Amino acid sequence: MTPPGVTDVYFDFLCPFAWRGVELASVLRSPERPFRLRHFSLVQGNHPQNPDRKAPAWWLHEQGANEGATHQQGSLRAFLGAQAAARQGEEASWAYALALFRARHEQQGELDSATVIGAADTAGLDLDRFVADLADDAGLRQALGSELRDAAALGVFGTPTFVLPDGNAAYLRFSRLIRDEAEARTLWNLYGEVLHSEAAIETIKRPR
Amino acid sequence: MTPPGVTDVYFDFLCPFAWRGVELASVLRSPERPFRLRHFSLVQGNHPQNPDRKAPAWWLHEQGANEGATHQQGSLRAFLGAQAAARQGEEASWAYALALFRARHEQQGELDSATVIGAADTAGLDLDRFVADLADDAGLRQALGSELRDAAALGVFGTPTFVLPDGNAAYLRFSRLIRDEAEARTLWNLYGEVLHSEAAIETIKRPR
Repeated sequence: MTPPGVTDVYFDFLCPFAWRGVELASVLRSPERPFRLRHFSLVQGNHPQNPDRKAPAWWLHEQGANEGATHQQGSLRAFLGAQAAARQGEEASWAYALALFRARHEQQGELDSATVIGAADTAGLDLDRFVADLADDAGLRQALGSELRDAAALGVFGTPTFVLPDGNAAYLRFSRLIRDEAEARTLWNLYGEVLHSEAAIETIKRPR
Repeated sequence: MTPPGVTDVYFDFLCPFAWRGVELASVLRSPERPFRLRHFSLVQGNHPQNPDRKAPAWWLHEQGANEGATHQQGSLRAFLGAQAAARQGEEASWAYALALFRARHEQQGELDSATVIGAADTAGLDLDRFVADLADDAGLRQALGSELRDAAALGVFGTPTFVLPDGNAAYLRFSRLIRDEAEARTLWNLYGEVLHSEAAIETIKRPR
């Protein structure tokens, strides 16, 4: 599923930890260490109709735009926006994800239509094309569904979850926003050490 | 609650990961790096009457010896055995915990009375004194209750959870049994790096 050498980062625009994870990936990404943006829905993952997260019965991309709670609608709207942005290329996709995450979690905006379209503007996308792509609702949902299926197959349960090229994967929750490259590398190396530890570490989790 | 310089390890004899955690602590412990054995009950932590794990309504040490499921009874019996062993000193306490954990998770024994008393024999304890101490049910339950209250106050949710002298704490789940000192130090240093990371890591958890 993942192209060789690529680290996938699964995220949901709803989640402030996913925001920090995508900021981290955006600092770390380079031609030698590519990352790929992937969508996982927290609403879907925690849905009562999905007791087995690897075999969901309820899928976010099959829900109506006006169905469900506000945050469910916002998450779907944001994902479809990100799928539309991705049609303008990989760099556009990253610029859009960062712009929308910041609009939500730095500027505390809602994930409404104005924010979703505004992020395309902030990210420097071709706005006419973005709006036209956004109208291809069925196509965008199909692309989203493919990512949600990949996340389910992996058993992703929270965001951000990183999947390394060697198949090792883990949810990584950290609360400091990191935009400094040296700090980002330190965190990334530590995360890699945990995933590759001879002790076969499965979980490190602070009580709250 | 914790003496200065001491690392607490919270565990339940039911849990194979707690077993590996106590083995780890037993390899690492020294006069310069003391560890203290502390009890946390998984049955209590996951009990439906305890939706707030920091304010339990249902306490294991208040339950009858013959009440509840087999694993609940085994956990209580093992904890009371460990409290009796602790009356013979700190070294006896460690020897007993290791003997009982191994009887359960290496030899696949049940946590019944024979196993709980047999572990005292394996650990080289004064058996007459152990059996006499075991008869002080009220005193042992009082000591157990004190540890369960400390665990609740910390929000412990799983075992093993280590609480460092500086107050940093986390559940550490790893699946390889480590009895080699160099490997134990490597794991312990990595765990410490995660807890002290500038990124303020809260969780690293693999999907299953």
